[in-house]
Amino acid sequence: MKRNLYLSNTPLEEAKALYLQRVAPLIQPQPECIPVIEALGRITTSPIYARCCSPLFNAAAMDGIAVRSADTAAARETAPLSLKRGEDFLVVDTGDPIRPPYDAVIMAEDVTNVDQEHVQITASAAAWQHIRPIGEDIVAGEMLLPRRSVIRPIDIGVLLSGGISKIDVSPAPSVAIIPTGTEIVEPDAELKEGDIIESNSRMFAAMVEELGGIPDRLPILADDYELLKACIQKAVQTHDMVIVNAGSSAGTEDFTVHILRELGEVIVHGVAIKPGKPVILAIVEGKPVIGLPGYPVSAYIGFREFVSPVLRLFTGAPSQDEGLEAEAVISKRLVSSLKHQEYVRVKVGKVGEKLVAAPLARGAGAAMSLVRADGFCIIPRNSEGLEAGEGVQLQLYRSLKEIENTLVAIGSHDLIMDVLADLLPEHFPGVHLSSTHVGSTAGLMALARQEAHLTPTHLLDAATGEYNAPYLRKLFPDTPMVLVKGVERIQGLIVKPGNPLNLQTVQDLCRCKYVNRQRGAGTRVLLDYLLQKEDISPQQIDGYAREAATHMAVAAAVQAGGADCGMGVLSAAKALGLDFIPIAPEEYDFAMPAAYLELPMMQAFLEVLRSQEFKDRLEELGGYGYQRCGEIIPIQ
Amino acid sequence: MKRNLYLSNTPLEEAKALYLQRVAPLIQPQPECIPVIEALGRITTSPIYARCCSPLFNAAAMDGIAVRSADTAAARETAPLSLKRGEDFLVVDTGDPIRPPYDAVIMAEDVTNVDQEHVQITASAAAWQHIRPIGEDIVAGEMLLPRRSVIRPIDIGVLLSGGISKIDVSPAPSVAIIPTGTEIVEPDAELKEGDIIESNSRMFAAMVEELGGIPDRLPILADDYELLKACIQKAVQTHDMVIVNAGSSAGTEDFTVHILRELGEVIVHGVAIKPGKPVILAIVEGKPVIGLPGYPVSAYIGFREFVSPVLRLFTGAPSQDEGLEAEAVISKRLVSSLKHQEYVRVKVGKVGEKLVAAPLARGAGAAMSLVRADGFCIIPRNSEGLEAGEGVQLQLYRSLKEIENTLVAIGSHDLIMDVLADLLPEHFPGVHLSSTHVGSTAGLMALARQEAHLTPTHLLDAATGEYNAPYLRKLFPDTPMVLVKGVERIQGLIVKPGNPLNLQTVQDLCRCKYVNRQRGAGTRVLLDYLLQKEDISPQQIDGYAREAATHMAVAAAVQAGGADCGMGVLSAAKALGLDFIPIAPEEYDFAMPAAYLELPMMQAFLEVLRSQEFKDRLEELGGYGYQRCGEIIPIQ
Repeated sequence: MKRNLYLSNTPLEEAKALYLQRVAPLIQPQPECIPVIEALGRITTSPIYARCCSPLFNAAAMDGIAVRSADTAAARETAPLSLKRGEDFLVVDTGDPIRPPYDAVIMAEDVTNVDQEHVQITASAAAWQHIRPIGEDIVAGEMLLPRRSVIRPIDIGVLLSGGISKIDVSPAPSVAIIPTGTEIVEPDAELKEGDIIESNSRMFAAMVEELGGIPDRLPILADDYELLKACIQKAVQTHDMVIVNAGSSAGTEDFTVHILRELGEVIVHGVAIKPGKPVILAIVEGKPVIGLPGYPVSAYIGFREFVSPVLRLFTGAPSQDEGLEAEAVISKRLVSSLKHQEYVRVKVGKVGEKLVAAPLARGAGAAMSLVRADGFCIIPRNSEGLEAGEGVQLQLYRSLKEIENTLVAIGSHDLIMDVLADLLPEHFPGVHLSSTHVGSTAGLMALARQEAHLTPTHLLDAATGEYNAPYLRKLFPDTPMVLVKGVERIQGLIVKPGNPLNLQTVQDLCRCKYVNRQRGAGTRVLLDYLLQKEDISPQQIDGYAREAATHMAVAAAVQAGGADCGMGVLSAAKALGLDFIPIAPEEYDFAMPAAYLELPMMQAFLEVLRSQEFKDRLEELGGYGYQRCGEIIPIQ
Repeated sequence: MKRNLYLSNTPLEEAKALYLQRVAPLIQPQPECIPVIEALGRITTSPIYARCCSPLFNAAAMDGIAVRSADTAAARETAPLSLKRGEDFLVVDTGDPIRPPYDAVIMAEDVTNVDQEHVQITASAAAWQHIRPIGEDIVAGEMLLPRRSVIRPIDIGVLLSGGISKIDVSPAPSVAIIPTGTEIVEPDAELKEGDIIESNSRMFAAMVEELGGIPDRLPILADDYELLKACIQKAVQTHDMVIVNAGSSAGTEDFTVHILRELGEVIVHGVAIKPGKPVILAIVEGKPVIGLPGYPVSAYIGFREFVSPVLRLFTGAPSQDEGLEAEAVISKRLVSSLKHQEYVRVKVGKVGEKLVAAPLARGAGAAMSLVRADGFCIIPRNSEGLEAGEGVQLQLYRSLKEIENTLVAIGSHDLIMDVLADLLPEHFPGVHLSSTHVGSTAGLMALARQEAHLTPTHLLDAATGEYNAPYLRKLFPDTPMVLVKGVERIQGLIVKPGNPLNLQTVQDLCRCKYVNRQRGAGTRVLLDYLLQKEDISPQQIDGYAREAATHMAVAAAVQAGGADCGMGVLSAAKALGLDFIPIAPEEYDFAMPAAYLELPMMQAFLEVLRSQEFKDRLEELGGYGYQRCGEIIPIQ
């Protein structure tokens, strides 16, 4: 099979316009008539007019008595007026009809019972007082909902009150989702090297559902031209729309575009977006067929940009909520290509008065970046990117209120940050902890730029043997800082189960494949300190230049990534069932400006840090000391 | 049955705290274990950790060839290096595993095919280049989702990739909804005077569904103490929570509180909110039972404030999205009681640089105010209200972007405003028209205060016989204004079918029951002009003081509200099957500052006004002239 090296690089808006303009005339959905009580979330296809008034009649607006207003004119505080039941008044409850000759209601509170048959009033009643006139809320014939309304609970109430029990709504389009690839397996399969768990189709199914469609996820197809062709041919007969995933790129096994050219017309192959470029927009037998890339972030963005608008043509749903727009400053330099519009996922926090957007992993495969993201920062085509501190426009997926109640931690990675992020909102509803892992040094830099509230750090000062404090003195000469003590943890060698190479000391690193941490990470600083003490040069270590970004990534590289050993913490080794050779204790603390101690959410953080539940969780993880946890050390 | 006149007036936060603190210990839901692929919208009960890495192995990040990086060191542009298939390289597609001894990938674009067995490269490859290391996206053991996460499509993808195919989620609580009231009937019933269509229970059911519960709407119960008691007794056995609606107030047939006291404990009866005061918060057999008021707005607010937080105790859902907060100015004076926290529904628009909130109908029965609202303006207890133009904090339910694309019309009412509101977004997606009906004069005042973009108006100048323009000259001496011509319509007498009283002229109003429009309405101005011409005094007309706010409300009063006649337009009479006696033609136009003509959304409005489709809709409605529709008249 030949490669299709040449994808086009059609700009997003052009690709969308080209495709939608071809697809729109093909989509002529027939309205479906359904009971109003089943219409939650459905979308009206025409304006809906009330069939009857609400209230249906002049009705008492209060509990009390119905009277003829003219009869009450003489009533005074000083000259109470007596009224006779059945003749002068009727007892009415809220909502009861008021019929002639009665034309006013007096509230129960303003009526004095005299005997079974008589009451007294001490003020006259104005005509029509405390009466809800017919049609006060809804008048027959008035428009209750315009077309393209998404039905909410209150709409259901109002439609019923207006005499409407059935309405026309858009039909739910059926969408075939075809997962392809010889390497992909069902989630419950026994995994072997080379297998990829099929997950995109399930994400698409949920996205289709959210947009009001009916997903039909077909079985996984191996990479086989004829099989896939037959499957697409059948799917366009039985469904309103088809999604093929993946095989949309230009590799040796990317058949999809050839098949779609054979069966119908490919309108666009390749769009100038990143991630998401290798999208195929096609029409087969009058049905939209879209090929989406396999990387999860590409798949997600391709769906949002191309499948969503097509589904909205079927459902008539109002255009997608692009999220709340907000201004922020970007926390680090972002270089982007002139060729693409890039979607950078960001964590957002409010530090002082400004919103700070910290870019997450940018790879097309970084699905977790979408899970963690608070929003997108979209870098347009023809932009070279952004400088750190530059203002950017964000599309947020969380409310500003939620963001304002989020404590932003940028710094070193430890599993306890996950535990704290879990416990904080449990104990303080609405308060969240967002952690970004960039290593201790980069974290302190972010703190200095006021992009974080705190930095988890474990930096050893080689000169004094002291942890963290010397760095704060050096980096923040003018800001009163504090160090909140965190945990003591043991750094050690993470090795394969049973420690087959019998690695015991730093010297042993010279005879194995090592995986290192990135520059500025506390663990790397510690290694360098130990190597220096033993007079070992980095060149002597195979893999010194291979970098992993977190303890867990180091452990993963040892578990199955071709490395024999890396330095890290016990909890990471334990999480992956690896062995651990202790090397040196260290102090993992939280640095912050003293002023931030006053923030209510920081107080909440400290309370959780000092809680028994946190200590219990540390015991579960193992390998941590917490005698000084939560202690506050002012830095002079 | 005695009245329970005395509801308490417990402040909202106190009532909530009292009740939730009693209910919380009773709610101990057992997690439900479900397949991830069915978990959309469900809520996690514990943090979820990855079971495997993603990728599961070191994988090619590009289509190309896998090589040993050390072997490629000599390759140069000027000295291409030849590599042999199977020995020096393997062809790989994105996602293929990279096994030792291979440790780098060269992109297909950088490889030249020499023959079947050989390729050439012109640059060296760095170790680990274009390889996605094992665990790059997800490392086994890392936290994928904290507890209380609402599962989104992307979460489903990531959970599956992390080896999780089943998760624990909160169970969906079952909620019994008991509609009560001898006067309420099912929506499809044949309606007679005194009937109220039961709609609240269906709104509640949809609200329960949105919050992740399972609603069980029971049949309507007549107001009968023993029946209701038996029903509640059974419901608390079979459901997690019970809602009783209505009978929660203090009328003669409001049994609910007595029954709940007999069966269990009433924690609060009566909360200091408006609408929504007569809420009952009770516990029966360890189950939360809430009595909600019957007025739809009270019912809605009572549900939001009390049922929602109890449901969240079951589901663990994060606290309710209170909507986007925004600053606005209030368009008219709002007097509120010191005793209650009041929820005023508002329409919001952006006029010039400011957001303007126009209060909608405030009655507890005004369900349409909830349908039309863009948000709430909450007036706290102990506040007397707001002055026109005062700044207020809003909770918005639409995005600011949507609000910025909404043309705000405040002024006179005509059915064509509904038609324009329907057509505008059809022709210009994303552009909306919001109309508030306050009459012509009040509309022009709002325009002068820059709270609207345009005012539909039909004000006759008695001195000149000219419509609208004289008022603009007088009210806007310093602002260049324009009048966009709208429609000619006939004002006339709306009378019962067959015109039984044979009403033909303004003189005839002296011998019937009339229903008038509010002060400042163009129709009232016209009536006053006609009365003056005929030398008739308002005192001669029975009902001159009875006011209805719109043409449709006048028609409704004539249809079934005890009035014989009102003045209004043909379309309103037609909508309710009434007869119409033409009296005088008039001009219904749109006033606006000349500067607003430049707004793109105003251009869109003008285009719709001049469209054939709009004219077709006018023909359908009947009684309109549209020769000058869309013409622009500058006002000197």
